[in-house]
Amino acid sequence: MKKYNTSPISGMQELLPGLQAEFNRLKSGIAEAIHAHGFQNIETPTIDRTEILLAKAGGDTEKQIYKVVKTAETADDADQALRFDHTVPLARYTVEHMNDLAFPFKVSQIGRNFRGERAQKGRFREFYQCDADIIGWGTLPIAYDAEAIAALIDAMQVLPLPSIKVRVSNRKLLNGLLEELNLNGQSKEIFDIIDHAEKVPHEATISALTELGIGSEDIDKVMKFIAINGSRDEVIPRLREFGFGNTGFNEGVAELDEVLTILERKLERLSGSGVSGEPSTEASRVLPTSVVADMMIVRGLDYYTGTVFETIVPEHREIGSICGGGRYENLASNYTEQKLPGVGGSIGLTRLFYILQNYGLVEASSIKPVDVCLVPFSAAEFATAEELAEKLRKDGRRVDIAMTDKRLGDKMKYAAKVADSAIAIGQDEVRSGKFMVKDLTTGEVTEL
Amino acid sequence: MKKYNTSPISGMQELLPGLQAEFNRLKSGIAEAIHAHGFQNIETPTIDRTEILLAKAGGDTEKQIYKVVKTAETADDADQALRFDHTVPLARYTVEHMNDLAFPFKVSQIGRNFRGERAQKGRFREFYQCDADIIGWGTLPIAYDAEAIAALIDAMQVLPLPSIKVRVSNRKLLNGLLEELNLNGQSKEIFDIIDHAEKVPHEATISALTELGIGSEDIDKVMKFIAINGSRDEVIPRLREFGFGNTGFNEGVAELDEVLTILERKLERLSGSGVSGEPSTEASRVLPTSVVADMMIVRGLDYYTGTVFETIVPEHREIGSICGGGRYENLASNYTEQKLPGVGGSIGLTRLFYILQNYGLVEASSIKPVDVCLVPFSAAEFATAEELAEKLRKDGRRVDIAMTDKRLGDKMKYAAKVADSAIAIGQDEVRSGKFMVKDLTTGEVTEL
Repeated sequence: MKKYNTSPISGMQELLPGLQAEFNRLKSGIAEAIHAHGFQNIETPTIDRTEILLAKAGGDTEKQIYKVVKTAETADDADQALRFDHTVPLARYTVEHMNDLAFPFKVSQIGRNFRGERAQKGRFREFYQCDADIIGWGTLPIAYDAEAIAALIDAMQVLPLPSIKVRVSNRKLLNGLLEELNLNGQSKEIFDIIDHAEKVPHEATISALTELGIGSEDIDKVMKFIAINGSRDEVIPRLREFGFGNTGFNEGVAELDEVLTILERKLERLSGSGVSGEPSTEASRVLPTSVVADMMIVRGLDYYTGTVFETIVPEHREIGSICGGGRYENLASNYTEQKLPGVGGSIGLTRLFYILQNYGLVEASSIKPVDVCLVPFSAAEFATAEELAEKLRKDGRRVDIAMTDKRLGDKMKYAAKVADSAIAIGQDEVRSGKFMVKDLTTGEVTEL
Repeated sequence: MKKYNTSPISGMQELLPGLQAEFNRLKSGIAEAIHAHGFQNIETPTIDRTEILLAKAGGDTEKQIYKVVKTAETADDADQALRFDHTVPLARYTVEHMNDLAFPFKVSQIGRNFRGERAQKGRFREFYQCDADIIGWGTLPIAYDAEAIAALIDAMQVLPLPSIKVRVSNRKLLNGLLEELNLNGQSKEIFDIIDHAEKVPHEATISALTELGIGSEDIDKVMKFIAINGSRDEVIPRLREFGFGNTGFNEGVAELDEVLTILERKLERLSGSGVSGEPSTEASRVLPTSVVADMMIVRGLDYYTGTVFETIVPEHREIGSICGGGRYENLASNYTEQKLPGVGGSIGLTRLFYILQNYGLVEASSIKPVDVCLVPFSAAEFATAEELAEKLRKDGRRVDIAMTDKRLGDKMKYAAKVADSAIAIGQDEVRSGKFMVKDLTTGEVTEL
């Protein structure tokens, strides 16, 4: 026999059923919380025109996109590739269907995206992203920036993490500062340096800025700016102290103020419900959550123009951001003259789930696929077992029947692997219609 | 501006949010019913090694498979392609993880598969399939054939169809017959002819068999055999009348008898619960369902070895099969010496959903994405709206807030598009804490 390699391709997630059930539970919990905020789910095709996918892209994206080879029967089609995120297909979708959508269009996308990156632990080439976006028609009030983040905060409540901290900033602030310092010609390079500032020593950031030819006085101002973080009360006055007449900067302060005001109100209610012990139905539990302004957050070279945010796990800062996003001025400028400002964010669930596993925060064994496994002694009891199974399923229980012709002990072993409890069915049970339920963890036996 | 084509690629499903919600409801309903039978969900990567995917394949599959171009950073990997069904990745998965699985392994897979077929109405190049399979370790009792079909019957209860008919046969019967007639050398060709017999006139089938050089007496026997269909009581005696000493044929009769016995018992209970009006929680309603034996069912050139089945909608026979499958002797003979017999079936949901739309059996408008839309008069009422929204979400309701700065009338228009009801919030409501709910269909106003 030819020897095949049956492992999945490197960079692909493949879970055993117990972990898959846990993954699915988190995915559903995230989806439910986002939909509870009035977001509508859509799905775009996995395969799209390369021309569309790469219209705005550059750099790594173009190198990492998976192109698809046309088959003999699809040869006439345009060049095709696998989508690498949800934003580009969303732009195409919104333009294609704009006459049939209600704006602001609150939209969720939960699906698999693809990037052919170098194989590396914790990096995935196929990965689930859970996106929530709000697209305006011409304009979109800043309150929606807070709403997008609020929906994602509710979504994250389902995650088995010690706590989360949402760090918010606004691109207009740094842009305004650089404008005032006449450094906006180098904003790309400076954004990149600030984006990495957290991961390197203080001095490395200064010397990187110096290398760009920026004077030490200006560097001081930039360093002072990116060090600003804290609650709204702490941050907004300090930003005002910068005292620029710069319009963009002042807009940024006002927008950040509004977003923080709404989110801090939300957190008070969230922690209120946590203190009273009242469980939130938006999630199975209340996850300690904080929101701060933090001028270190720029979201690198992405296309954001206003609000930007990232989410970290303070106990495990090394994880990096688990949910980030921001405001974009115009979703689909490549495909339409209609201005479509938007705001949104994304949870990278596949990577996050991998991390949760590594930290021992999710376990496969917590959920058994079956509530009750029925164990008929022989085929003579099948009919009774089937009838009982259907009754129990009507009560919402997951029920399996051990139909193998193995010995009773082997069937009970199977039951213990897949189920929380078992009901053995012999001729006595068939006659009496009375069934004993054995708890497979405690061994306790009770009548059904 | 360069003009982009923003339509999805031909052969790809892309739904508006209202239809997507309905699609998702059917998909979840199918998943829940299958899981209620104790099937465990798994997901395999969309991209797999071409060598694995094509190990058993041939014919159309090889022509229709989408190969994926490796990127600079994945260049060292094996050749890759998109999975075209769930069975091949399941075989690889089962072999790869066999030491960690409980057998019989009852497994569900619900995801997207890909075939680069010629563009054609109702044919999809990317399509959801909902699969339920049971894999045995060495052996797998025939009762599991009935269990796989029973789970899929429960899954189909969620479908908005007038009725369904499950047609069951067993490959061993036709194989046994051809062996007795010394025609087993031509079984591939004969299977193919019988598979198409339903779509062509009686005479065309006869002449196709004649063209193979089969004598008229033997053709008579084949034609008489494939005409056999009906309930267990009708069919089993007629099959026994064929009176072969052929071992395979007799095995086939016994297996078909057992499968039909279990499924007819199931249907009695199913229609019983329908008659009493008691709703099944396995589905939202009871779909009129019948099961018959039908010797016309062979499942073409597929790899089945025993039980085979297809499901039709008797009122719309032109649709063809909406759910089919069967027993395979050995799931993964290419990858392991371990014998892994299995049985399973699949619902092609994307194609089915397209058909349901064409027959007017699903509509987008039936579900609004939001239960209640809150309409604050101005930003001054946002805090009250947010608090109320969170309370309502805790009661399991989907709540949106119209945060635009448009006139009240425009906000109510938005609410009418996305929600079933609306609550306007002005300073009076903020002070009193009393809210009036307006039903957006009837116009009726009630206090919350």
